[in-house]
Amino acid sequence: MKAVVTSADFNLADNESIEAGESATAVRDVALNCLADGKVLYAGHAVAAVAATRPEIADEALELIRVEYEVLPHVIDVDEAMQPDAPLLYDDMITQGVTPAPTRPSNVAKKTVFGRGDVQFAFASAAHVIERTYRTAAVHQGYIEPHACVASYGADGQSTVWCSSQGQFLVRALTAKILNLPLSDLKVIPAEIGGGFGGKTTVYLEPVALALSRKSGRPVRMVMSREEVFHASGPTSGSSIDVKIAADESGRMTAAEMNLRYQAGAFPGSPAHLGAMTAFACYDVENLALNAYDVVSNRPKVAAYRAPGAPMSAFAVESAIDELARELDMDPLELRILNGVRKGSVTVYGAKVHSDGFIDTLKAIRDSDHYKSDVPDGQARGVAAGFWFNIGGESSAAVHVDETGGATVVSSNPDIGGSRASMAMMAAETLGLPIERVRCTVADTTSIGFSGSTGGSRVTFATGMAVTQAAEKVVEDLKRRAAEIWECDAGHVDWRDGAAHCLDPSKDVKPLKLQSLAAKSAKTGGPIAAEVSINAQGAAPGFGVHICDLEIDRETGRTTITRYTAAQDVGRAIHPSYVEGQLQGGVAQGVGWALNEEYIYNMNGVLENAGFLDYRMPVASDLPMIDTILVETAPNPRHPYGAKGVGEVPIVPPLAAVANAVSAIVGKRMTSLPLSPAVVTAAMEQGD
Amino acid sequence: MKAVVTSADFNLADNESIEAGESATAVRDVALNCLADGKVLYAGHAVAAVAATRPEIADEALELIRVEYEVLPHVIDVDEAMQPDAPLLYDDMITQGVTPAPTRPSNVAKKTVFGRGDVQFAFASAAHVIERTYRTAAVHQGYIEPHACVASYGADGQSTVWCSSQGQFLVRALTAKILNLPLSDLKVIPAEIGGGFGGKTTVYLEPVALALSRKSGRPVRMVMSREEVFHASGPTSGSSIDVKIAADESGRMTAAEMNLRYQAGAFPGSPAHLGAMTAFACYDVENLALNAYDVVSNRPKVAAYRAPGAPMSAFAVESAIDELARELDMDPLELRILNGVRKGSVTVYGAKVHSDGFIDTLKAIRDSDHYKSDVPDGQARGVAAGFWFNIGGESSAAVHVDETGGATVVSSNPDIGGSRASMAMMAAETLGLPIERVRCTVADTTSIGFSGSTGGSRVTFATGMAVTQAAEKVVEDLKRRAAEIWECDAGHVDWRDGAAHCLDPSKDVKPLKLQSLAAKSAKTGGPIAAEVSINAQGAAPGFGVHICDLEIDRETGRTTITRYTAAQDVGRAIHPSYVEGQLQGGVAQGVGWALNEEYIYNMNGVLENAGFLDYRMPVASDLPMIDTILVETAPNPRHPYGAKGVGEVPIVPPLAAVANAVSAIVGKRMTSLPLSPAVVTAAMEQGD
Repeated sequence: MKAVVTSADFNLADNESIEAGESATAVRDVALNCLADGKVLYAGHAVAAVAATRPEIADEALELIRVEYEVLPHVIDVDEAMQPDAPLLYDDMITQGVTPAPTRPSNVAKKTVFGRGDVQFAFASAAHVIERTYRTAAVHQGYIEPHACVASYGADGQSTVWCSSQGQFLVRALTAKILNLPLSDLKVIPAEIGGGFGGKTTVYLEPVALALSRKSGRPVRMVMSREEVFHASGPTSGSSIDVKIAADESGRMTAAEMNLRYQAGAFPGSPAHLGAMTAFACYDVENLALNAYDVVSNRPKVAAYRAPGAPMSAFAVESAIDELARELDMDPLELRILNGVRKGSVTVYGAKVHSDGFIDTLKAIRDSDHYKSDVPDGQARGVAAGFWFNIGGESSAAVHVDETGGATVVSSNPDIGGSRASMAMMAAETLGLPIERVRCTVADTTSIGFSGSTGGSRVTFATGMAVTQAAEKVVEDLKRRAAEIWECDAGHVDWRDGAAHCLDPSKDVKPLKLQSLAAKSAKTGGPIAAEVSINAQGAAPGFGVHICDLEIDRETGRTTITRYTAAQDVGRAIHPSYVEGQLQGGVAQGVGWALNEEYIYNMNGVLENAGFLDYRMPVASDLPMIDTILVETAPNPRHPYGAKGVGEVPIVPPLAAVANAVSAIVGKRMTSLPLSPAVVTAAMEQGD
Repeated sequence: MKAVVTSADFNLADNESIEAGESATAVRDVALNCLADGKVLYAGHAVAAVAATRPEIADEALELIRVEYEVLPHVIDVDEAMQPDAPLLYDDMITQGVTPAPTRPSNVAKKTVFGRGDVQFAFASAAHVIERTYRTAAVHQGYIEPHACVASYGADGQSTVWCSSQGQFLVRALTAKILNLPLSDLKVIPAEIGGGFGGKTTVYLEPVALALSRKSGRPVRMVMSREEVFHASGPTSGSSIDVKIAADESGRMTAAEMNLRYQAGAFPGSPAHLGAMTAFACYDVENLALNAYDVVSNRPKVAAYRAPGAPMSAFAVESAIDELARELDMDPLELRILNGVRKGSVTVYGAKVHSDGFIDTLKAIRDSDHYKSDVPDGQARGVAAGFWFNIGGESSAAVHVDETGGATVVSSNPDIGGSRASMAMMAAETLGLPIERVRCTVADTTSIGFSGSTGGSRVTFATGMAVTQAAEKVVEDLKRRAAEIWECDAGHVDWRDGAAHCLDPSKDVKPLKLQSLAAKSAKTGGPIAAEVSINAQGAAPGFGVHICDLEIDRETGRTTITRYTAAQDVGRAIHPSYVEGQLQGGVAQGVGWALNEEYIYNMNGVLENAGFLDYRMPVASDLPMIDTILVETAPNPRHPYGAKGVGEVPIVPPLAAVANAVSAIVGKRMTSLPLSPAVVTAAMEQGD
């Protein structure tokens, strides 16, 4: 046995927050989630770590650690956690965002309010009011690769961490701050990642492993088991959401009210506010009142999961709109077209919509073969829409031309969905090279400028913009070099088809290919390279519309999806088959959320299904081929190739698309996910 | 057993050369040196490689390979190899550089001629003529870490090689060309290096390991044993050199003639031409005629070794000058001051000397405590000088500022002598940061622009210039950001002490530290970073002057060095203790070359001392503390901090410094190295 660490080895002195994508992470909470301090907040919360040269020795050492637990009352459910008499996780947690500040502590970490117009007046005069409460279960990101890292603390104080994550710079910042190291003393090398989906935008092992390495003077490897992944990483929030919609006779939605209660797990930080912001982002609703509650309970700290917060609120809103359509006896797509945001619409959080992408996507589904086909006998069809902001932000990239005229693109972002291919394509297009001559790699934290994490559907947009700008800088440099060789003005050099062309008619010269310029680079100023760091602005939001046909086995309650089509406003698809893959992957995960996935706790607050046998994610045989429609009517004008984020939108609509179809078959509104066989059977028995 | 490869797996179609430092490498020769094709050229020349999951299986597989050898006559000695009846390594080798071209093949690959003036006339009128033939043995670079690599050929054709070398870009170029891969498909990750000294500027294992990986579909690790290192890597050339010097009555050298015969090993490429170029580079000699011969023999292919080619020719020239000083009864330093190059002198290859650095270095030794002290009884003192070009060339570097205002410097060159520390210092100085906040790492081939290898004493100069320029770009960017925040003109912002200072008197603002600007970087354009690629010109040559006191045990012939001082014109020492370390290391290796190191072949052409027990490198207990004098009278005006290369010069003087002292004790001119106990004993017996 070489070393033991506890949270006493961490820097817990300040409570700085680090911006990461759409939200901020409190460093101290991340540290205390890695290793508990005094109070264990959930079953699975680690308290100490040991390092040894063999697993058997480590096991033996762990057994020698005696932890004296005093069992305290616990609370798992979000609504129960909000009750006045609920067991409190923190004696000093006063709800933020409420004026005047509450005098008593509670499990509500924060209330966020969005609104506009006069909701009360609108409801009073409404022709139709739809109102219900919806619930979703906590679900895990379900990446195939468990968390793992190797950390090595050098004798000179310089350290290296190898790990797979969605952001090597975020791992560096969190690990360095938790261990009180200068950022420049820590190099994080991103490993290939076996799935992230938002769940790898924080740290669990890295500070622990590096603390063990610092104590032992040896490199330390840490790997989570699948059980540990379920007990102590991820998941996303379970939720409880009230939604109330007012509409006029024509179906025009005039007002909406929502209360969104999201599980944060053991530390504040649920995406409740994002749920509120996205809930009506697809629709032009004049009067809105949305309250979002971030609620702690004795569960693992939630992590981001694909479009964090949006699928739950979309489930509620899209279910309510489905109910409204039925009440109006109106086609659910036409109802959405009537209410959908258009160019010039403004969201409740003040963003202006810059295109008719949502309307185009609704129409693409309306005009699809799937929607024009009759619903097969015994089946039902559900429709739902979804929205995601997409973000930009800080990114860095470099383009390096090799001696033979090939190029390497350096991305600052781990590739979780094929971004290396897209980066290489954008650089190849800009340089005029065949794609085979351009390769993209992901650099460590020392080798490229800072970048935000891979998340928020930002990489193809923001890092792609940095890549394109770096390639453009290379082209400018190549034109300068050609002009130097030709002894002409750089303004008289054009770059096309991977070669410099002389526009000066007095020069009788052949075009100079990149290969020739690369071979001559030493004579024209040295290696050909450019690095660009930017804060990318202008990420356009994305809209998705899904339709789902399904049938239910009345004996077992098993739901089988028979046909599924996902349409999405994708700006311009840089790598269409990867974009399709994103849509299909989002649907698969959303279907799992709708039908099967949930955290099941026993009376003692212990998770009972911490494994893939009992936590049922859909596998290929559970799903039909998912058809996709890439709507490219609105290329993003702020991106050189029209790209915008596509990875998060597709997980937003499936919950309601599936539930709306199930509700149609069952004959009653299904308000609580997952719609597992037991739930569906019970509902059908009640309904019959 | 997973795979077998031979040279049939290599691309041997073209015979391209790659520029590497002072010389060019023929790719095909490198390939055929890794694995022989048809004819095995030296004992130890590999013919096939196997990959297996365990060493025992690989051993068994190797035993199953049956090679039918036909034993051919061989030649080891360079003079013998030049005889008309010598066994020929190649039936078609016609000496290059001779007009008209010879009609018969020989072992002389190339003759290179340098000259000026009228040598014949000068000798005819000379007051003094000194003439002898000198010989040096082949010696190995003696790095502690044997060659080793891991190679992984990806299913998508993209490969990664981890290895320690003096140039990840050179490893990429050679390996990719030998295996016919696009450069952009191969990523070479430089590992920490356990010594190189020039010997790791080529490849032995990497193409073999990657070919095995390509065949087996698995990562392949290859590691040389020490015996293999001696048999098949390195060494530098053994040599045979005629030197003839003419001087007038005052000691002024008027003419010199030299014939330099250098072993190339089994493939052309000895540094004979560099021996000729450096031989008289310290001296203003009006008439020169120098012929350099590159000669193949049945030895391992030579590799670069610290100041390639210079120590041997300096041994000859500095011995001859010592002899001249004795003949003239003149102080050997005064003789050199009389003849030494000064500002304005021109070398035989046309370079102009830009400083009086050599004269200053001679004077620094003359005025040193060591030289002013009497030679102790029973001891003798040797003096010798040395020269190295130092080079610049293509380098890339980047500076990345982290979110907290620390910085990472990216070097494109493996660190073999502490260059990371120097790079960090130059960046810290430019940025105005404490050195503790700046770290330097060495990037892989994809993450930074191209760079020449670590060699030729180029890194602190060329890559240091790139680092400084990158840091300067960062400072310009920081000034722009401060101006943006202050809403003033960037021209009114000064950068000093790590902070922006506003020079506009109408603005009442406090200086903005780098830390503050880093925290605000997202709002002022994104991450703070700059990458620079250059072709650095203006590397100034270096001069060294050494003095050595020693004594000889008359019974055993063992030479003991009692005091040693090395002075060198170092431009400006960026990191003085590392510079001292370079001088001390060069002396240690030079002393080994002078006294003990040699390749001993038996009658069958097999190396008999392939191990550190029988190949005697000096260890700490063999040497006194080596005193150093850093002469900083001539900072390099072409480098922002006055730096120039320092690593190679110090291995040039020791051979003659030691031999001149031994000659003084023995009482006769010692012309053949090493001066091992047996040689010295024999000479003393003859002399007595």
